[in-house]
Amino acid sequence: MSKLVECVPNFSEGRRPEVIEAITAEVKNIPGVKLLDVKADASHNRVVVTFVGEPQAAKQAAFNACKKAAELIDMEKQRGEHPRIGATDVIPFIPVKNMTMEECVQLADELAQEIAEKLEIPVYLYEEAAKISTRKALPDIRKGQYEGLKTEIGKPERRPDYGPARLHPSAGATVVGARQFLIAYNINLDTSDVQIAKKIANCIREAKGGYRYVRAMGVSVQVGGRDVAQVTINMVNYQGTPLFRVFETVKSEAARYGVNVIGSEIIGLTPMQALLDVAEFYLRLDGFDRKQVLEDNL
Amino acid sequence: MSKLVECVPNFSEGRRPEVIEAITAEVKNIPGVKLLDVKADASHNRVVVTFVGEPQAAKQAAFNACKKAAELIDMEKQRGEHPRIGATDVIPFIPVKNMTMEECVQLADELAQEIAEKLEIPVYLYEEAAKISTRKALPDIRKGQYEGLKTEIGKPERRPDYGPARLHPSAGATVVGARQFLIAYNINLDTSDVQIAKKIANCIREAKGGYRYVRAMGVSVQVGGRDVAQVTINMVNYQGTPLFRVFETVKSEAARYGVNVIGSEIIGLTPMQALLDVAEFYLRLDGFDRKQVLEDNL
Repeated sequence: MSKLVECVPNFSEGRRPEVIEAITAEVKNIPGVKLLDVKADASHNRVVVTFVGEPQAAKQAAFNACKKAAELIDMEKQRGEHPRIGATDVIPFIPVKNMTMEECVQLADELAQEIAEKLEIPVYLYEEAAKISTRKALPDIRKGQYEGLKTEIGKPERRPDYGPARLHPSAGATVVGARQFLIAYNINLDTSDVQIAKKIANCIREAKGGYRYVRAMGVSVQVGGRDVAQVTINMVNYQGTPLFRVFETVKSEAARYGVNVIGSEIIGLTPMQALLDVAEFYLRLDGFDRKQVLEDNL
Repeated sequence: MSKLVECVPNFSEGRRPEVIEAITAEVKNIPGVKLLDVKADASHNRVVVTFVGEPQAAKQAAFNACKKAAELIDMEKQRGEHPRIGATDVIPFIPVKNMTMEECVQLADELAQEIAEKLEIPVYLYEEAAKISTRKALPDIRKGQYEGLKTEIGKPERRPDYGPARLHPSAGATVVGARQFLIAYNINLDTSDVQIAKKIANCIREAKGGYRYVRAMGVSVQVGGRDVAQVTINMVNYQGTPLFRVFETVKSEAARYGVNVIGSEIIGLTPMQALLDVAEFYLRLDGFDRKQVLEDNL
């Protein structure tokens, strides 16, 4: 079966439609790649581009878009609310189908070298692709932003993983890496008491002793004209911490307060596998193989 | 999104590989169609061919295969254990993706007319495509088989829906129709007492007051060297009676005997939607849209 990778590059341009158009055209022009989404934000002065494709095609699309951004965005003039260090600020690869994380790391590494060599842009490797433990988190790499990095890039601890130890004169620097697909998942409670949602969020989030791959907050939302307490969750690795486990834990913790879960919602996209895992768990499926899914044989 | 239909024609040849090869070649030769499975049975003297494709392409593949079978199979000489009335015995269309049952019925009707007109084979419409209520069930149409139908086809109640009121001299008659995807689903109990499985099967099967689209039996199977009582199920319409409802009912009925469900298994293929429905049910998903599945955007 064919391999599928998602790529979500962020470019430091959210205001000039013709520049955004020129960058996304580079993605559209590569056969075997499909552009799924383009979200530009003028105040952030940033655009988030989402595409999927066969690994080598996705790498080519990412490279071409990065090259175009280096031509059209001048970091000496770029201003916006969102932290950034380069014209192409960050390029994460995400395994979608028949891809391991190791293969995504490899792909990120290849792209990083190509950008460094052919475009002479310094590149940092982050998240799963990080070679240096202090570069796992994006904010750590982006510390001081474009302006700060310009003076610090020569220091040993800030030297890029690939490319020159100086910023590209207009494109700055770029971060490339691999991470898991992030699922935005909300669970609604049959109470308006946001404190209960906050307590439950603390039970499941890693930071408070909960699940390793869960970020969560308790918030109050309007559903059908009334206040509903909601546990809003970022599932940062749905294979490491699956949806059903989080759902069952929220249900169990809510019961302590005499509160029921009235529903949950997935915001935006999810890989099929995350939902297949839910079906497998609840039906206690034995020996289920992804190839048994009819559509996967096509 | 593209429409996808499954087609599972049964041909009355399970012994001569060169004939089976010639028939399936007609399916493989149509662009937009993918051959998924070929299961021949020598004692039945029958082959079950499974393919999927875009509706018009699937219809063309079915017609071409039917034409080839009419050339190569002589019903005057054909003998086998499985009941049959023609070289191409039955052609069901099954909605898989972005297809309604009505569209499958329409497709079956078009194919039936084409076979009748171009090949001069009498055609009966069955299941969801039946125009006459007594022709819903295949065994009713096949009563007396090829030999019996030869003398009875002139009777008003046995006249075909399309084509001549006499059998084709070598190819006999054909049944065309539309039905839901059938999921073969087994649930294993933590007991060796097959009587409990039989009682539970009776709770869920339509024939005994259970769910409308469920056929079920209690059987004894070997799992890891020991006897396990199993409820073996044919889910004949997974949208009408979903997997999770059957699973939960079996769990609840088993509890009455102090028995647990140790697991379940899907045999062969299942449409993705059947498992998405399971995930939606257990996570109590609100407003989930199939388009949120990443792979469905490709």
